[in-house]
Amino acid sequence: MGGTSTLIKQDSDKIRVFSLGGVGEIGKNMYVVEVDNDLIVVDAGLMFPDDDMLGIDVVIPDISYLLENEDRVRGIFLTHGHEDHIGALPYILQKISVPIYGTKLTLGIVKAKLSENGLEKSADLRLIDNNSKLIVGTTTVTFFRTNHSIPDSVGVCIETKQGSIVHTGDFKFDQNPVDGVIAEIGKMASIGEKGVLCLLSDSTNAERPGVSISESVVGQGIADVFYQSSGRIIVATFASNVHRIQQIFNVSKAMDRKVVVSGRSMVKIVSIATELGYLHIDKDILIKEEDINKYDDSKVTILTTGSQGEPMSALTRMAKGAHKQIAIKPSDTIIISATPIPGNEKSVTKVVDLLYRTGAEVVFGEKNVHTTGHGCQEELKLMLNLMKPKYFIPIHGEFKMQYAHRSLAKSCGVKNDNIFLIDKGEVVEFFNGEGKPSGKVTSGNVLIDGIGVGDVGNIVLRDRRLLSNDGILVVVVTLNKENNGIISGPDIISRGFVYVRESEKLLDEANKLVAETLAKCMDENVNEWSSLKSNVRDVLSRYLYEKTRRRPMILPIIMEV
Amino acid sequence: MGGTSTLIKQDSDKIRVFSLGGVGEIGKNMYVVEVDNDLIVVDAGLMFPDDDMLGIDVVIPDISYLLENEDRVRGIFLTHGHEDHIGALPYILQKISVPIYGTKLTLGIVKAKLSENGLEKSADLRLIDNNSKLIVGTTTVTFFRTNHSIPDSVGVCIETKQGSIVHTGDFKFDQNPVDGVIAEIGKMASIGEKGVLCLLSDSTNAERPGVSISESVVGQGIADVFYQSSGRIIVATFASNVHRIQQIFNVSKAMDRKVVVSGRSMVKIVSIATELGYLHIDKDILIKEEDINKYDDSKVTILTTGSQGEPMSALTRMAKGAHKQIAIKPSDTIIISATPIPGNEKSVTKVVDLLYRTGAEVVFGEKNVHTTGHGCQEELKLMLNLMKPKYFIPIHGEFKMQYAHRSLAKSCGVKNDNIFLIDKGEVVEFFNGEGKPSGKVTSGNVLIDGIGVGDVGNIVLRDRRLLSNDGILVVVVTLNKENNGIISGPDIISRGFVYVRESEKLLDEANKLVAETLAKCMDENVNEWSSLKSNVRDVLSRYLYEKTRRRPMILPIIMEV
Repeated sequence: MGGTSTLIKQDSDKIRVFSLGGVGEIGKNMYVVEVDNDLIVVDAGLMFPDDDMLGIDVVIPDISYLLENEDRVRGIFLTHGHEDHIGALPYILQKISVPIYGTKLTLGIVKAKLSENGLEKSADLRLIDNNSKLIVGTTTVTFFRTNHSIPDSVGVCIETKQGSIVHTGDFKFDQNPVDGVIAEIGKMASIGEKGVLCLLSDSTNAERPGVSISESVVGQGIADVFYQSSGRIIVATFASNVHRIQQIFNVSKAMDRKVVVSGRSMVKIVSIATELGYLHIDKDILIKEEDINKYDDSKVTILTTGSQGEPMSALTRMAKGAHKQIAIKPSDTIIISATPIPGNEKSVTKVVDLLYRTGAEVVFGEKNVHTTGHGCQEELKLMLNLMKPKYFIPIHGEFKMQYAHRSLAKSCGVKNDNIFLIDKGEVVEFFNGEGKPSGKVTSGNVLIDGIGVGDVGNIVLRDRRLLSNDGILVVVVTLNKENNGIISGPDIISRGFVYVRESEKLLDEANKLVAETLAKCMDENVNEWSSLKSNVRDVLSRYLYEKTRRRPMILPIIMEV
Repeated sequence: MGGTSTLIKQDSDKIRVFSLGGVGEIGKNMYVVEVDNDLIVVDAGLMFPDDDMLGIDVVIPDISYLLENEDRVRGIFLTHGHEDHIGALPYILQKISVPIYGTKLTLGIVKAKLSENGLEKSADLRLIDNNSKLIVGTTTVTFFRTNHSIPDSVGVCIETKQGSIVHTGDFKFDQNPVDGVIAEIGKMASIGEKGVLCLLSDSTNAERPGVSISESVVGQGIADVFYQSSGRIIVATFASNVHRIQQIFNVSKAMDRKVVVSGRSMVKIVSIATELGYLHIDKDILIKEEDINKYDDSKVTILTTGSQGEPMSALTRMAKGAHKQIAIKPSDTIIISATPIPGNEKSVTKVVDLLYRTGAEVVFGEKNVHTTGHGCQEELKLMLNLMKPKYFIPIHGEFKMQYAHRSLAKSCGVKNDNIFLIDKGEVVEFFNGEGKPSGKVTSGNVLIDGIGVGDVGNIVLRDRRLLSNDGILVVVVTLNKENNGIISGPDIISRGFVYVRESEKLLDEANKLVAETLAKCMDENVNEWSSLKSNVRDVLSRYLYEKTRRRPMILPIIMEV
């Protein structure tokens, strides 16, 4: 586990606010508010690995600080059910035992997730709703409903003696939400009236002017495509976007289309959301993949995952002709109801290209078939004006987004000196209503590879990087130390370096060179293992670089008999 | 070398047009027009590797077809000096000897490139300009000047008995080009009047409505930033964008700022373009990096590379505080005069974030500090209307761009059946003025790793992928076959798998397992090497997957004495 740890003594009159993830990055959101002796944690998300984290599946926050203070952690409060807010729970709950608070849908998704890891029974899940009021230590924790790309999202208000600390969660203001459930603007205003010491607010779209498009408008955009299509319609979207899914079911029903739900995560969410009452669908609208050909093409909608070009997703398999049940036809219309998450642009383009090549109609990007779940500049300013915070910490985003959010806050009257652009682990401390930066706690990335948590670090990653660039050469030789001779070898085994067949001469030469080097060493009575090995490594490395401009990893194995 | 090869007999009355690269992808442009016995090649570009081409430096087209027909290749005609049009030359010219035609600046850049590979002297470089007229076999080849993000760009017109085959090169129509040199619209119109059999046109921006912004407008946008800045100004842009560079020099001169040119490729291009008369700068405006502190910050411009977040570029090193001469100050203004090329979004964001963290002002994206070099929809339609081609082949772009370009061509009156959305190697054949698809020639990716051309293929890449995901375990053991015993080992050496220190128990167990497996094999008299090895591999692989959910490469090395 990385990061910097500083021992800071606890003063019972102080409030400390910091992030263990989610600032200076997209993902693994986790924020901590420490009031007197009580640690209140907001969210526990995961992040998908950067390109240079080779072989890593997911990244979670370093929770050393929580482990060191486990007896003071009062709970993890979840704002909504997205992976970047709940995805670390299965790993974290193996190490720490704390109550988890969340709304109905959020806990429904968490439960499904934990049950995959056998953690469902041991977890202490506590249901809240937007009207819940909890006493936590010396504070009262309340919630307010927001609009986001998943239902049942809330913001968190921690009422302290110095004023409220408010965490917005992910939010937008949607004046026509699909479920008719408007964000609680009045409640936000009254929180603001009572006095907000510090606001932590979602910076995702702080660089985007204007307001976000309403989810209902997107529903209309999707419906327009439905009206114009006479073949099958395939819609790919995020599984967690229940409102989007509802609208796709609605228009399918209106046009008398049956719906096939395809892709593991889509099937799972549709089932959870239906069961909990967040998705309203007629039972007989659903058909199975294998029954798809029993219906006329004009009567079929296929709802699927893969909007990010994920190689193993249903859509990608369809595009490649590798899907067992569904082959794309030129008469199909495919709607990609999503935009690429940064980093996925190339893989999305690849899938789009494959889809076009099938001759099908592809709708994505320009048309109104997707909207963001995060408020744009005017919405972020509305939040600032409702909350009227004395201090402001822009969260949830790259540094450039936090930076842009600072400008917005200044334009809404927050003093420049009262805005903190914090990095992970950096503490802001409040005392007598005054805030200031105050040291650091341990923070960092914990890498998950398979079921290993944190057993892959910089050295392992460096080796993987080397291996991925130029492969490896294993040099095996058996020596007889007594009479200074080579008994067998040297044998060179290469993986990921060159085609052996096309480079026989190169490897033969390399072989000879190793034999000569060893002979010379033994003549000169250099016969410690480590010297022999480093000699072989140096000579071979130099030779191969000269001939190929590559630097494979070289692993000399010298046996003695 | 990949792709499909089909032997096609040559009919002397036929024209064949195909692409060896540049369609269905971004990069490695290479197109071939075969008229009677003459092969005319347009461009020879490189492509940067996809994420899954681990360790690969660049990708070039498979030129098997040209090698098989070397005696008929009349020349490679270069449209302009960008890497995706000339970058394959250093590799190709090692295998094939043909004349290279290009304009002054294009050949200047090619020469510098070839001299780095010691190929300058042997290359047959032939200078042309926009008014050149060459007789090539039975055809006449002429050129027309276009606007693009590098000066001296041309389109190519191959006049055949059946009509002209026109290749636009990369183009936009800029009504206020920086050098005042307008695209030759009149000449294009007269080519169209004479009769164009087939047009091959740049599809890069076929999805973008409207027209591209003029380069002069960008100059004004950059100047606006200069007017508002009182500290140093650092501008990062593409080294080849000579017009952009000219404008940066102009505004620097107007504001009495000296200019430091930083970054190897920037220094090179500034020197070539100045020498050849494409860049006009006062000698005394240039200062050296080491003299930068002799001038007041308000009198300094730093012109540099790294607009794509390249890890080793000057800008990235400055952002990281790792640049020897230039440390970024909070009073600096940094202009990133570029947009991320698809795939580079994340690395650009990383550098932007680092720059923001220095406290400096960062200008990129939204403001008018960059424009595309490729025409948007209205410009592409203008080209189609000028050329009035009977047949149309959209080139230079992903399939979705070719697809969008087809719609534009249809809207300009080209018949749907006369538009060919070709993939690499797919031949369109013209006979008596009628065109039709006609088989395939060999095409594909040749991967360059270091100085190896094509010695890395699917097997090597698959190994690198495996190694990069979970690393490698080498298991070494020495057996005595006669008395069925282990003399030494098993020793397990791991690289890129787990932290050895944190996983001692795992590796100890693995060790024991291997010893038991070998003992059992020998008891059962399984003693062929291959069986012993596959037994070790299977047992170990299963064990490690169960314990870690990882699948490292396992390399058993069994020695016998």
